[in-house]
Amino acid sequence: MWLQKIIQLKKRTRGFHLITREIMQQLPELSDFNIGIMHVFIQHTSASLTLNENADPSVRQDFESFFNRAVPENESYYIHMDEGSDDLPAHLKSSILGCTLTIPVTGGRLSLGTWQGIYLCEHRNDGGPRSIVITVYGE
Amino acid sequence: MWLQKIIQLKKRTRGFHLITREIMQQLPELSDFNIGIMHVFIQHTSASLTLNENADPSVRQDFESFFNRAVPENESYYIHMDEGSDDLPAHLKSSILGCTLTIPVTGGRLSLGTWQGIYLCEHRNDGGPRSIVITVYGE
Amino acid sequence: MWLQKIIQLKKRTRGFHLITREIMQQLPELSDFNIGIMHVFIQHTSASLTLNENADPSVRQDFESFFNRAVPENESYYIHMDEGSDDLPAHLKSSILGCTLTIPVTGGRLSLGTWQGIYLCEHRNDGGPRSIVITVYGE
Repeated sequence: MWLQKIIQLKKRTRGFHLITREIMQQLPELSDFNIGIMHVFIQHTSASLTLNENADPSVRQDFESFFNRAVPENESYYIHMDEGSDDLPAHLKSSILGCTLTIPVTGGRLSLGTWQGIYLCEHRNDGGPRSIVITVYGE
Repeated sequence: MWLQKIIQLKKRTRGFHLITREIMQQLPELSDFNIGIMHVFIQHTSASLTLNENADPSVRQDFESFFNRAVPENESYYIHMDEGSDDLPAHLKSSILGCTLTIPVTGGRLSLGTWQGIYLCEHRNDGGPRSIVITVYGE
Repeated sequence: MWLQKIIQLKKRTRGFHLITREIMQQLPELSDFNIGIMHVFIQHTSASLTLNENADPSVRQDFESFFNRAVPENESYYIHMDEGSDDLPAHLKSSILGCTLTIPVTGGRLSLGTWQGIYLCEHRNDGGPRSIVITVYGE
């Protein structure tokens, strides 16, 4: 069984955002899959997806602070600077964190650990709405 | 063909550990798949999975040393500190390295390169046993 | 439907290289898949794969500069040094960026965003040709 749909995520501020609920609300068909995989793919190079702690919002603040230090803006050796100082760091963060998630499906539900939630990592100051392709396959 | 099982990995010390054998011993059914994918998913936000060198154990020691410097404990700007100084860095390392592996299956075996092995990356000082969900699909 | 093939990528210099075309030329069968996933797996521990900007080549130069600073050679605490100063950093970069891509397939084509291309990340000074396993599954 295969299911594929494109979801438009609403525009968010720069930072890390919990979007598990926004995705699941648009995916009622998941309950038809007994065993499977949900593949989530963001069609951008300056935003990314990751799984992490779904409880304390300060984790997401600390993620933003950490990645801004680990991948600084305005380094003198950067060449690709035309689209703003947040652009190249956004590309780098996107490749470090990745643009894809694959999550097991069990009995019609995501087989996430208790503390795991889906983060949209918005690395641009003004990224706009983001498109993700969801593909679910299984039996 | 679909196969899914949850495996409990035995508790390990903080650091990087080669677990290819521990996983394969619990997956004799892999030999039934001629072409497929093995999906490995760790249900935690402070441990991760990666593929890397399976020969020299000093690579795994160097990984621990490197990631402790790249993602230090006790940074003054961290907010999420209640669960110990190793907790937030563990979340960050988990998202940098990722909680999922997908490995091609060919002729009933993992199609790994000669030097590739599966690492459990235990980022907590006292992480306890870790649950992974294995899903194999193919024909 | 399942398809699997091993592709030998031609040897490249150290750095980040756009290889979308080289892969697609060897995969005419993709047009048979209406909905699916293309799984790309590099069988090495000192090279990696990522998706990022396919337009301005300076992004790829900046990636090489950034990762050389983020994962320096010749750190005094490295133990695994026998295979050259570029070897351990190559292993680290490989795990940070990852050895796998999974890209949705829609209507016989990769469902990439406008600006997304496949990068081979060659982290060794003299890495030689690299093997990748492509697995496409879908309907």
